[in-house]
Amino acid sequence: MKGKVYLVGAGPGDPELLTVKALRLLRTADVVLHDDLVAPEILELIPPDVQIQNVGKRCGSKTMRQEEINFLLVTHATAGSQVVRLKSGDPLIFGRAGEEIEALRRSNIEYEIVPGVTSAFGAAAAAGIPLTHRRSSSTLVLTAGHRASENDANWNRVAGDESTLVVYMPGQEYAEISSRLKSSGWAGETPCAIISRATTPHQRVHLTTISELDRAPKFASPTLLVVGEVVKFADRGLVEEAGNLPEFEQGFVAALAHRAGLVSESLHADEEPLA
Amino acid sequence: MKGKVYLVGAGPGDPELLTVKALRLLRTADVVLHDDLVAPEILELIPPDVQIQNVGKRCGSKTMRQEEINFLLVTHATAGSQVVRLKSGDPLIFGRAGEEIEALRRSNIEYEIVPGVTSAFGAAAAAGIPLTHRRSSSTLVLTAGHRASENDANWNRVAGDESTLVVYMPGQEYAEISSRLKSSGWAGETPCAIISRATTPHQRVHLTTISELDRAPKFASPTLLVVGEVVKFADRGLVEEAGNLPEFEQGFVAALAHRAGLVSESLHADEEPLA
Repeated sequence: MKGKVYLVGAGPGDPELLTVKALRLLRTADVVLHDDLVAPEILELIPPDVQIQNVGKRCGSKTMRQEEINFLLVTHATAGSQVVRLKSGDPLIFGRAGEEIEALRRSNIEYEIVPGVTSAFGAAAAAGIPLTHRRSSSTLVLTAGHRASENDANWNRVAGDESTLVVYMPGQEYAEISSRLKSSGWAGETPCAIISRATTPHQRVHLTTISELDRAPKFASPTLLVVGEVVKFADRGLVEEAGNLPEFEQGFVAALAHRAGLVSESLHADEEPLA
Repeated sequence: MKGKVYLVGAGPGDPELLTVKALRLLRTADVVLHDDLVAPEILELIPPDVQIQNVGKRCGSKTMRQEEINFLLVTHATAGSQVVRLKSGDPLIFGRAGEEIEALRRSNIEYEIVPGVTSAFGAAAAAGIPLTHRRSSSTLVLTAGHRASENDANWNRVAGDESTLVVYMPGQEYAEISSRLKSSGWAGETPCAIISRATTPHQRVHLTTISELDRAPKFASPTLLVVGEVVKFADRGLVEEAGNLPEFEQGFVAALAHRAGLVSESLHADEEPLA
């Protein structure tokens, strides 16, 4: 059989937010090459006979070079494998899919792109924040925090003007982000939200303003920062659910629930069998 | 049983790009209220005993007012129904979900937001366009064409500066859009793509530049306009597939394929059974 590479979005974290197509491909692949940020609950859906490799790259840790990943994709497909290249969220934003596609085209490897739910939409849904709103925002800007040091222009240009800004991978230097947003023209009282591990049982949401951002807790990655007037519509009920308790309290709740045999109904509610 | 409203994203069109959760909810709902733009192939997945209502609103035609839709949602949920409010793409962008959420909160109706694949990602995947790229674009701006006449600022602010602009609902006045983009600071030679009915068997893609946009064909809605250097990475092979032939040629190909018994392998390739 001829090999093929599928560049597939894994969605924001909840396995039920995989697309039907992504789930089908994960179940029929020969090889899955995935990023670090793909949720373990999603990897558990892959049948045991599929070859799985983490080709994830994290800032500061030992990494696989993009060229090595490209080489792996081409090699597996040339050998006749059905390869799923699994990326968290959607594959075409902040995922270097462009470089992988170029490598596949150069080698005449058949490929297909399977879009996914990008993390910004997962986070917004989890916190009840409409990303556009007839009265508050007509434009959504998605940008990446790790590029900001090279070029602040984008944060500047959309400041406040009926826009919502979502920063992927904002890092944890919130004081720096806060002053950068303010010097870009955003008002200090603009509401913002930090959302960690959205749509998973470990989700955490912190609502604040740009001025108070430096006092925000440092949540586990992946996190997203949502900035704009629409954040005022966030659902305080959703935000204050168990998933947002401090770590020690979460452990306590989990222990209690486990003792009461309630685990499958509470923390693991997202893991019910997939259709 | 207590009623609940699920605000659910239907994705860009291909039924396999529904999330696993969206498909589960469509199969177990009592009532589905959907927008005009939700693909008929998706509505066909809803069991026959479910009450389905089109509450879609289109420019220029007789419409259901937002207040009426809010009233329907509250009424059905109060009567104890499990209600799916199905919106094309993702529910939290350009879908007035904010207003529906406010109405549900005011009436103390339980609700949940189920994110979906937004049309921009479906269109980009279908045309092989990476929406960000390490060398060309670090920011993605999603805006709506029908707001442009009120406020051009957003098109202006992101012009060219390592950004990709996606205009939802651009309309068909391409000459006007072209001159608006140019007067906002975009270079005339900037590549752009018009993508119609992305991820469905009727998909059409037209690659052009801002200067030549006025000569683009008028495709069936929903369409999207993608503007930016990343469009030069579009996959010409994907773009020139049967789905992009002029209407009369498509009809000709379909007739030939039908005669040859090939329909199920070609135009209907997207409609294979769901997992």
